[in-house]
Amino acid sequence: MSLIVQKYGGTSMGSVERIQNVARRVAKWHAAGHQVIVVPSAMSGETNRLLGLAKELSAQPDPREQDMLAATGEQASSALLAMALIAQGVPARSYAGWQVPVRTDNSYTRARIRAIEGTRIREDLDAGRVVIVTGFQGVDEDGNITTLGRGGSDTSAVAVAAALQASECLIFTDVDGVYTTDPRVVPAARRMKVVSFEEMLEMASLGSKVLQIRSVEFAGKYQVPVRVLSSLTDPLIPLEEEMASGTLITFEEDQKMEAAVVSGIAFSRDEAKFTLRAVPDTPGVAYSILGPIAAANIDVDMILQNVSVQGMTDFSFTVNRNDALRTHDLLSTQVGPAVGAGEIVYDDTVCKVSIVGIGMRSHAGVASAMFRTLSQEGINIQMISTSEIKTSVIIDDKYMELAVRALHKTFELDQEK
Amino acid sequence: MSLIVQKYGGTSMGSVERIQNVARRVAKWHAAGHQVIVVPSAMSGETNRLLGLAKELSAQPDPREQDMLAATGEQASSALLAMALIAQGVPARSYAGWQVPVRTDNSYTRARIRAIEGTRIREDLDAGRVVIVTGFQGVDEDGNITTLGRGGSDTSAVAVAAALQASECLIFTDVDGVYTTDPRVVPAARRMKVVSFEEMLEMASLGSKVLQIRSVEFAGKYQVPVRVLSSLTDPLIPLEEEMASGTLITFEEDQKMEAAVVSGIAFSRDEAKFTLRAVPDTPGVAYSILGPIAAANIDVDMILQNVSVQGMTDFSFTVNRNDALRTHDLLSTQVGPAVGAGEIVYDDTVCKVSIVGIGMRSHAGVASAMFRTLSQEGINIQMISTSEIKTSVIIDDKYMELAVRALHKTFELDQEK
Repeated sequence: MSLIVQKYGGTSMGSVERIQNVARRVAKWHAAGHQVIVVPSAMSGETNRLLGLAKELSAQPDPREQDMLAATGEQASSALLAMALIAQGVPARSYAGWQVPVRTDNSYTRARIRAIEGTRIREDLDAGRVVIVTGFQGVDEDGNITTLGRGGSDTSAVAVAAALQASECLIFTDVDGVYTTDPRVVPAARRMKVVSFEEMLEMASLGSKVLQIRSVEFAGKYQVPVRVLSSLTDPLIPLEEEMASGTLITFEEDQKMEAAVVSGIAFSRDEAKFTLRAVPDTPGVAYSILGPIAAANIDVDMILQNVSVQGMTDFSFTVNRNDALRTHDLLSTQVGPAVGAGEIVYDDTVCKVSIVGIGMRSHAGVASAMFRTLSQEGINIQMISTSEIKTSVIIDDKYMELAVRALHKTFELDQEK
Repeated sequence: MSLIVQKYGGTSMGSVERIQNVARRVAKWHAAGHQVIVVPSAMSGETNRLLGLAKELSAQPDPREQDMLAATGEQASSALLAMALIAQGVPARSYAGWQVPVRTDNSYTRARIRAIEGTRIREDLDAGRVVIVTGFQGVDEDGNITTLGRGGSDTSAVAVAAALQASECLIFTDVDGVYTTDPRVVPAARRMKVVSFEEMLEMASLGSKVLQIRSVEFAGKYQVPVRVLSSLTDPLIPLEEEMASGTLITFEEDQKMEAAVVSGIAFSRDEAKFTLRAVPDTPGVAYSILGPIAAANIDVDMILQNVSVQGMTDFSFTVNRNDALRTHDLLSTQVGPAVGAGEIVYDDTVCKVSIVGIGMRSHAGVASAMFRTLSQEGINIQMISTSEIKTSVIIDDKYMELAVRALHKTFELDQEK
């Protein structure tokens, strides 16, 4: 008997029939003698419906009240799942975040989990019940409802698994695992059976949308084994088969370290590049430019400062495309004049392509193989950044698919290792 | 400056525009210097939508989970109203039942309020905020969410008013007050400006659906002045005019006692009459018949036992039509055979018509005026029951409108007093 946490996304909870299917799958695990905690998202469309009402009332809804509103979606789906289980003869009980409690800080709409009290859940599990914990939400120390932000149910599930020392956290979703890259771009993309937590973290942060990045951070911090797998299979698929499906995110590096140098290719079009031309190259200029950007809560990703020519340099950086307007505003009204920059150049036709792999730690020449491939395809590299286990480049976004396909082939990701 | 509780029903909260209108009305009271607590229902249709989903999952949804589900409706509408107020520049904060907390027993789906903690609300009011408290729900001593049953938001509002010693509890609804009888039946029906709490209690329990009966009981127990008034007027109607509208339910009897003997005519078609013929008239037979009915949680309303003929009697009683099937089942399979009854006769073409008035306490002959009127109209009275301030009769339901109109005229209810 082991303790398993299972998270189901909004699509999996999207209708009465689908909720009944989730209940069948959970009942199967329960019948096999496992203790099961389920973390459901709101029924698909519900969070958007609620936030749509809020937006009609206010362009910027009060954050506390927005959380109060949005949290109802998961409370409803959790109660419905409990009913479905009970109707199938499985004892079950649902808890809202505050009932567990899932304690968070008070950053409404993007709160962070501080602690999860496991006593009540443990009692129910020991009494043979399936426990359902609302995803996405918690309670601050003053008893206000908070939410974790979009995709927060993944984080809830991993946090619950960590707090109760579950043997595995299963993230059921509408894809059947994590792929070497997006199969819509590279049909030969291959599902990874295992991926290391660090690789997954890079993949998530680089635009692969299978898991919310904070859930991966949580999994890493608390060493929770997480498996991403499909909720679209027959709910009564044998347990062993289910446990061998999907992608396991692991901490036991040696399982696969020997084999792959590059595990996957991530990419993202959510990039915008800014260049300040002819900036006087004085000490502290980088801080003068990026300080105000950071102060406005805009995340800067890549940074490039050209060599100085006659005491002047070009300074480039990228931000998320959603922040492009605000960044442009800051640069043109504030930062540019302050540092005495020349022209401000803005480019939102760029993308980021990254190779990720723990093997890069111990293998030289991986980055140069990437650059060679891009060069052979005639793709100009505008910016480069590297970390221990990834290399990212900014290129013209019309070459994105071409670059991803070529790199996928270069690193033989279509071949099982 | 006074403290006012305002309750808005589901229709008043039924759309973004209507919520904005509620916010305008509340803002008007706030701007006039009053402290305001608002108790909203769920948006109209929402509770039915949620319970519909539950019914699809289970013919008898688990009661704890049903409350967990249903409570989300009021939480959402409360948060939306807070947003609307904040968007109009009025500081506001919403609280779910458990946050106040509104403490109840653990009778899921029909819980009773035990206590309301006013500290948190008081702090917000003193800080100049409008406080919004979800109607219809509370929390039991183990931290489970409970609901008060259909129409429970009225009870929530009155209970909050009692706990915080509000000067008045305004129940905003889609009618403009309590009438001498249903204007759809008697076009000459007149809105009462004042009605005593006891009369209102009889009216509510006899089928007048303006207020939930438990809210009236609560108002009586804690002497909370309640006013029923329309939410369909211009939200910016002057305060004085608003406070003179609707119907005030009062505890100061002398205000009107001198005038009316009969205040209103209530009626209900939700009646079913059962007769057990030829029951042996032995001591304890009434208990033998009604004991099992009560044990099945079926409320018996009127009871009639004919005089005994040759040691045999006919025993009749009425129940709510919703309980008719279960009652029939109990009588035919269990009670009838046990007491050795003859035929069991069932009649669901009956109705109940009642005259209500505190003046009946001190005026003789009121009931006989009622019987005379019915007799003049050729209406046969099947059963009679009386209390200090009401007289009810069971008659053939095809005569209901005729009886109500005739009685309305007899007691001159169309004339202002």
